[in-house]
Amino acid sequence: MSELFHVGISGARGRMGRAVSQALDAREDVMVSVRFDWGETPDLSLCDVVIDFSTAEASVALAETCAERGGPALVIGSTGFSPEQEAALQAAAEKVAIVRSGNFSLGVNILIGLVEHAALRLDARDWDIEITEAHHRKKIDAPSGTALMLGEAAAAGRGHDLEELRSAPYDGISDERKTGTIGFSSIRAGGIVGEHTVLFASDDEVLTLSHSAIDRSLFAKGAVAAAAWVRTRRPGLYDMQDVLGFRQA
Amino acid sequence: MSELFHVGISGARGRMGRAVSQALDAREDVMVSVRFDWGETPDLSLCDVVIDFSTAEASVALAETCAERGGPALVIGSTGFSPEQEAALQAAAEKVAIVRSGNFSLGVNILIGLVEHAALRLDARDWDIEITEAHHRKKIDAPSGTALMLGEAAAAGRGHDLEELRSAPYDGISDERKTGTIGFSSIRAGGIVGEHTVLFASDDEVLTLSHSAIDRSLFAKGAVAAAAWVRTRRPGLYDMQDVLGFRQA
Amino acid sequence: MSELFHVGISGARGRMGRAVSQALDAREDVMVSVRFDWGETPDLSLCDVVIDFSTAEASVALAETCAERGGPALVIGSTGFSPEQEAALQAAAEKVAIVRSGNFSLGVNILIGLVEHAALRLDARDWDIEITEAHHRKKIDAPSGTALMLGEAAAAGRGHDLEELRSAPYDGISDERKTGTIGFSSIRAGGIVGEHTVLFASDDEVLTLSHSAIDRSLFAKGAVAAAAWVRTRRPGLYDMQDVLGFRQA
Amino acid sequence: MSELFHVGISGARGRMGRAVSQALDAREDVMVSVRFDWGETPDLSLCDVVIDFSTAEASVALAETCAERGGPALVIGSTGFSPEQEAALQAAAEKVAIVRSGNFSLGVNILIGLVEHAALRLDARDWDIEITEAHHRKKIDAPSGTALMLGEAAAAGRGHDLEELRSAPYDGISDERKTGTIGFSSIRAGGIVGEHTVLFASDDEVLTLSHSAIDRSLFAKGAVAAAAWVRTRRPGLYDMQDVLGFRQA
Repeated sequence: MSELFHVGISGARGRMGRAVSQALDAREDVMVSVRFDWGETPDLSLCDVVIDFSTAEASVALAETCAERGGPALVIGSTGFSPEQEAALQAAAEKVAIVRSGNFSLGVNILIGLVEHAALRLDARDWDIEITEAHHRKKIDAPSGTALMLGEAAAAGRGHDLEELRSAPYDGISDERKTGTIGFSSIRAGGIVGEHTVLFASDDEVLTLSHSAIDRSLFAKGAVAAAAWVRTRRPGLYDMQDVLGFRQA
Repeated sequence: MSELFHVGISGARGRMGRAVSQALDAREDVMVSVRFDWGETPDLSLCDVVIDFSTAEASVALAETCAERGGPALVIGSTGFSPEQEAALQAAAEKVAIVRSGNFSLGVNILIGLVEHAALRLDARDWDIEITEAHHRKKIDAPSGTALMLGEAAAAGRGHDLEELRSAPYDGISDERKTGTIGFSSIRAGGIVGEHTVLFASDDEVLTLSHSAIDRSLFAKGAVAAAAWVRTRRPGLYDMQDVLGFRQA
Repeated sequence: MSELFHVGISGARGRMGRAVSQALDAREDVMVSVRFDWGETPDLSLCDVVIDFSTAEASVALAETCAERGGPALVIGSTGFSPEQEAALQAAAEKVAIVRSGNFSLGVNILIGLVEHAALRLDARDWDIEITEAHHRKKIDAPSGTALMLGEAAAAGRGHDLEELRSAPYDGISDERKTGTIGFSSIRAGGIVGEHTVLFASDDEVLTLSHSAIDRSLFAKGAVAAAAWVRTRRPGLYDMQDVLGFRQA
Repeated sequence: MSELFHVGISGARGRMGRAVSQALDAREDVMVSVRFDWGETPDLSLCDVVIDFSTAEASVALAETCAERGGPALVIGSTGFSPEQEAALQAAAEKVAIVRSGNFSLGVNILIGLVEHAALRLDARDWDIEITEAHHRKKIDAPSGTALMLGEAAAAGRGHDLEELRSAPYDGISDERKTGTIGFSSIRAGGIVGEHTVLFASDDEVLTLSHSAIDRSLFAKGAVAAAAWVRTRRPGLYDMQDVLGFRQA
């Protein structure tokens, strides 16, 4: 039997904050001790872990507070960090355990591993990579954080950073596609929960690796699993590959 | 039995020109009488029809020559005409029969009708439209001419011109998707022959209408069918909807 | 402003019955007056319409009762009627207005029209038709009622009944595919809400028409729209094509 | 520079035999020394390797002849071996090097590895596996040999043989899907070159791994690569995972 632990929810009034709240209600081993949003000052001493789906700015401030206090541990699902904000998170993670991810689903995190593996095997001179994602009409950032994670995995498989390989959307007249680049396409329509596809194409064949979310609660459940994992870790900046035990594999 | 007719091939050394040549070889009722490219002066008196996959500029010059001479009829598969070039084609078509299309396949031309019908039925306030296309890595224009034809059909179903509704690729941070717009995404990878998808999504459901070309010869065969049809027509600017008899339907 | 009307829910404890109940709660012009299941005797005088997702047997019994009483009108979403049960429904519909459908979504009912249209245009000697559907692991009938409706639309486009054209699943060694047949494939996995695809393939190209349900509430909302429509109709057996006004088109 | 080697083609008049012949013509380091079909007695002393796309029966006879003679090496693409025929191949492979595979494409062989990996990670109690394949209308066996290879990889990832987990097509009324089974669906239509999809679905998400062949020459090129590899190997029964160097990985 797992022992009871206490969770704070940051960004509690947002879409993901509410979904996390529901996912926590379904578990008997967790109690929600605090709910807060940007501008509020929560009593962090009540929490073993805080699950935070807010903004890059709010997340960095929270991480710095937790680092100063020596806790609680953090699960951060915010996206869009600047290099400076990344550095601040990294610094905070020397004093507190943080799981950060653009996507908490098991399926996407499996997919990341498969994409890196395929990119490693499939010679960039023969195989082009294109990443497509589709989300509901209210999503304002593109490509999605998850699409960028997949792009980073593909680039890593080829020994590069994504920024070296990423190409702009094809629109208008351009040169022929440049060997080794990675393209991105985004679709925004209706209530699509979330679809991601990584396509590898040579002259003669196409390999397609896709993930589709059926229900948004998926991400909340994964964040809660990350919270259960991180509360007993040493300081450090972790991601879902660590939580799922893929890093050692 | 259909009687023998004579076809000229304009843009004869290009990829489509060679495919048309092969498609013509497979038919017993057609003879290729002339093959030419930009800068060459063919003897047009040898042709009942010319099939032309060249460039917008070359196609307009050819159409004007045919109009002056009073023939032969034309099948034009070039794309990327400017408004002035469009007007020149229109003027030439007062004196000679021209079939012009961005895509000569039966499937795509069926799809165009289905897209217009669906767009008419599905309220723009509830249903977003997104068009995606994928082609081989050497294709330099995006979106494809066929994607734009599908976009025009969707716009027409909603009583608009495409230019009023077309949105730019989603890339970076933007506002929420605007009601009634039509988005486009292009993929360039490997040897993909040609894929087009029109997606209609509401909050609760997605309708997807797609076409996939298995073999590039498809387009050549359709152009030859258009040639067989157009050689006995009165002057006018026709498209594949006319050739396939969909206009009256 | 629409006037208030009273709805009974048959099969109230089933998955769809509960979804209908939620969909009705969201509308201000409807009151749920009775909820019942097989074996219970509801007071039908309290209802303007009954929405019934029960079993073929229960639906026939209910339709006969309503016919004898001269109302209320019915919306029937049960599937799997035998020819005798079909005849019984038909007889009841001489005295009471019934909307019956295997799928109440707008998208699927648009798709049915598109499929019939495409099947009419695409010569059966050249174009093979295959229908695929995917649903959650608990669905026990295959192909789905909706897949069969799509098959009927495809067969109708070709001037046949589905039973003349339907082929068994390909499994083991068989003869080459027979010209003009319609194949069906079913997938059962996880929590898939509902996907349907009708594929038309010739030697050179593939046309694919698909529907995907994002949220199960979709079907309930459609059934409620059917209820609002049927309560003022004359006796007759209607379907969603009538409700949506597609029949006259 | 690789040195010239001599290849025999068994099943030379079949569709794959002719494609192999074309693929060999495109390589400068290979000469076709013999072409033969069932019932003909080739001079095997002229060959370093024989590429054989014939029938299970013919392949076993050829393997036994090569084993007795001590060569040439073999690349076998025939499918549908009985357990007895499998045993005969295994015995022959003690004396001669044989690469046998149901699919010689790089993409499919990458996919096999990805499927095994995903099946290992995704708990069978939560994740259902379904395999779908689509081929042209003339293909008479179903599921395809490649679909079965993918099924074996999925089963292996879960520590089972495919035969323990394989379920029959869903058709008619059945029980709920049984936990841990692997379903198969086949589509036969038009000129589809070859599509394979492995779907993993939980209650909340779907992971899809797919391969699509653009051009049939793909398989021939892979068989020729296998021939170049096997001609210098010790006796043994190999597959494409060996040829591609995936076994050691």
